[in-house]
Amino acid sequence: MRDVAVMGVGMTKWGELWEKSLRNIFVETALQALDDAGIDKIDSMHVGSMSSGLFVGQEHIASLLTDYLGVNPIPCSRVETACASGGLALRTGFMEVACGMSDVVLVGGIEKMTDVSGSEATYALGSAADQEYEGYHGITFPGLYALIAKAHMEKYNTTREQLAQVAVKNHSNGSLNPLAQFPFKVTVDKVLNSVMIADPLRILDCSPITDGAAAAILCPVDMVKQKGKPVIKVTGSGHATDSIALAHRDDITWLEATYQAGKKAYGMADKKPQDIDVLEVHDCFTIAEICVLEALGIVEKGKGGEAVEKGLSSLDGKIPVNTSGGLKAKGHPVGATGIAQVIEIVKQLRGEGEKRQVKDARVGMTQNMGGSGGSTLVHIFEKE
Amino acid sequence: MRDVAVMGVGMTKWGELWEKSLRNIFVETALQALDDAGIDKIDSMHVGSMSSGLFVGQEHIASLLTDYLGVNPIPCSRVETACASGGLALRTGFMEVACGMSDVVLVGGIEKMTDVSGSEATYALGSAADQEYEGYHGITFPGLYALIAKAHMEKYNTTREQLAQVAVKNHSNGSLNPLAQFPFKVTVDKVLNSVMIADPLRILDCSPITDGAAAAILCPVDMVKQKGKPVIKVTGSGHATDSIALAHRDDITWLEATYQAGKKAYGMADKKPQDIDVLEVHDCFTIAEICVLEALGIVEKGKGGEAVEKGLSSLDGKIPVNTSGGLKAKGHPVGATGIAQVIEIVKQLRGEGEKRQVKDARVGMTQNMGGSGGSTLVHIFEKE
Repeated sequence: MRDVAVMGVGMTKWGELWEKSLRNIFVETALQALDDAGIDKIDSMHVGSMSSGLFVGQEHIASLLTDYLGVNPIPCSRVETACASGGLALRTGFMEVACGMSDVVLVGGIEKMTDVSGSEATYALGSAADQEYEGYHGITFPGLYALIAKAHMEKYNTTREQLAQVAVKNHSNGSLNPLAQFPFKVTVDKVLNSVMIADPLRILDCSPITDGAAAAILCPVDMVKQKGKPVIKVTGSGHATDSIALAHRDDITWLEATYQAGKKAYGMADKKPQDIDVLEVHDCFTIAEICVLEALGIVEKGKGGEAVEKGLSSLDGKIPVNTSGGLKAKGHPVGATGIAQVIEIVKQLRGEGEKRQVKDARVGMTQNMGGSGGSTLVHIFEKE
Repeated sequence: MRDVAVMGVGMTKWGELWEKSLRNIFVETALQALDDAGIDKIDSMHVGSMSSGLFVGQEHIASLLTDYLGVNPIPCSRVETACASGGLALRTGFMEVACGMSDVVLVGGIEKMTDVSGSEATYALGSAADQEYEGYHGITFPGLYALIAKAHMEKYNTTREQLAQVAVKNHSNGSLNPLAQFPFKVTVDKVLNSVMIADPLRILDCSPITDGAAAAILCPVDMVKQKGKPVIKVTGSGHATDSIALAHRDDITWLEATYQAGKKAYGMADKKPQDIDVLEVHDCFTIAEICVLEALGIVEKGKGGEAVEKGLSSLDGKIPVNTSGGLKAKGHPVGATGIAQVIEIVKQLRGEGEKRQVKDARVGMTQNMGGSGGSTLVHIFEKE
C-alpha cells in the first residue's frame, strides 16, 4: 500500500442555500478543492450523501456530479452510511490511492436538506434508524439521543449543565469559523432555556438542518512533495458497525462502533489517544460528543461530561475538540460532515486555523458517526 | 496489488417477495454465499442498493445488514450508482482486497421494490435520471430508452423485430434458470403484440420490478487455492461516467460510459472483445443490449440488432449473452443486478451453468449500467 496524503481541500459557506441546487453547491466546492491542490485533473471521485433520494428526489449523483464538474468519463461512486457518509468517501478514496488504482482522487460529501419541509427532513433523517423497529413506532433522532442522554445522566451523574457546555464550547469555536452556519456564541443559560425538543435535549443541544458540501483531494505522498505542498498524511483509517437499533445494545451509553473504529485507526497509525493534538467528532447532539470522547479513549468511561466542563476539550485545552464549531455550530449537511471534519484537521495541521489555530498541532483525528452510532469512521492525519 | 478471486456466490429466487423484508432477503442470500465459499467469517462488506430510501424508507443499510447478518463490528459500506450499484460494490470490494486492507470481503446487492405502488416505484427509478432536466418534465425510463430505440432504428435501420429477438433470447435462457422471476419463453409475435409502454417499446421489451439480492465472496487468489476451490479471478475492472441527461449527449445511440469502462477493463485484463466466452450485459430494455454490444466492441456500431437476429449472442452462438436470462427474464432488483451478473459468470466459468452451460467458457465479462448510461461498470473474470 502506498502512503496517501491530502493535497487540497474545499468548503463554501454552509446554511440554508435556497438559491443553489445540489449540483451547484457541489461544483463550487469541488473547484475550490482543485484550486487549493493546484491541479486541474482528477482520476476518480467518491462522494458521500446520506439521502439525496429522499431530500431532493435525485439518486445517481455519481453521474450527475461528474457531469456538472465537467470531468466525465472518470469513475465516481456515491457512498452512504447515513451521517458518516463523508467519512466513508474518505476511506474509499484512501483505499483507491493506496492500492494504486488511481493517483488523484476527489473525496467529497454533499447534502441539500432544506428543499423539503421539516417533517419530510425528519422522515429522511429517520431512515438512518431501524425504520421497522424504531422509526415506524414514532421515535426520531432527538428522541434516540435523548434516551442516551437520560441513561448517561442516570449511570454517570452527568449533568444537564455539562451537556450545555458542549454547545457553549462548539458555538464559541464556530463563532471563529466564517463558513459556519451559526457563527455565534451561546451561554449555558441560553441552552438551558431554549425550546425543549426531546427531554432532556433542547434545541441548542441539537445540530441543525443544513445545505452544504465539502471536498478534499487525495494523492500519493510523493506527489504532494513534488508539488512542494504541505504533507498531511492519512495514517489511520478505522470503520466499524454496531446494531442499528438502540434497543439491541447492552449499554446505550457506550458507542461500540466508535470504540472499534478508533482501535483500528490507532493501531494502523501506531498512535494512542494522548498523541492526538486536535480532534473533530460527531456532535449531532451534545450528548454524542460526550459519549464519543469516552469511546475513543480520550477520557474514561462516564467522564465525558466532567471533561468538557473542566475545559479539557476547549480551544486552549489539552485536546481541543471540534475547533471548527462542530456539527452544532458549523452545521450538519449529513453527507458532507465527514469531509468537513477532514478539512478542519488539514487546516489545523497546515497552521491555517486562523483564530481557532491549535498551537503545534501535528496529529489530528476525525470521528464521523451514522445513526445512533450504528456505523462509525475514524481517521488519523499527521503532518510530516 | 494482490490478485483477487471470487470464492463463493449466493442468490435466492427473485420475484415479488411480499412475505420477506429487505433484511431477510439479504441475510438469506449472504448466508448462501458464505456456505458456497465454505467460510463463516468475513472482514468487510460492500452492498449496492439504488434507493432503499425511496423504496422502503430505510437508509443506513450498511449498519442494518451487518447487524442482521450477525457480523458486527465489521465495516460495511453501501454504494450507489443507480442500477449499476451492484457492479460498484464489486469494484469497491475488489480494491479493498487488492490493496490488502482486508482478506475476505462480501460484495452484495439488494433492492426491495414491490413494497411501494407502481407510480412510487416509477418515481424512485426516475431518480436515476436528471430529475431537474428530465424527471420533473415528465419523462420516465421507458421513455428515455424509447428515444434511444427510435434513434437507433432511424440511424442504423434496426428493426422492431430485432428488438423483440433480444427478449426472445433472454427469456429462452431465463426459462433454464430456476432463480429467474419470469422463467418462461416468449415469441417474437408475443413481444410485438404485448402492451405498448413507450413507442416503440412494449412491456416485453422492459425488465420488470423485482425484489431480490445477490452476494459474492472476494478474497486473495492464494486463499482460494489453499481451500482447493475453483479459481475464478477478477482480472479487469472498468468504471466510467457519462452525462446523466440524454439530451446532453452528441449521439444517444452510443453508450460512451460503457465504451470507456470496457476499454479500461480490457486493458487491465489484457483481453480483446473476441477473447470473451460468455457475457452478461445490462438489458434493462431490449434496445440497451443492442447498444451495449456495440459499445463493448463485440459488434460494429449499428450492427447490434443484426447480430442478435443472426444468433451471435444466443446460448449456442459465438458469444452467448445473458445466459442467466438477463434483467429481462431473471428480474431487475436494481441494486442487486450487478452482483447477479457476477454470479452467472462465476457459475459458467466453474462449469456449473447446468442447462445453460456455455462449453469451455474460460473468460467472462459483466457490464452493469446506471440510468440511461450515465455510469457503467465492466468486469472481466478468468478461470485459472
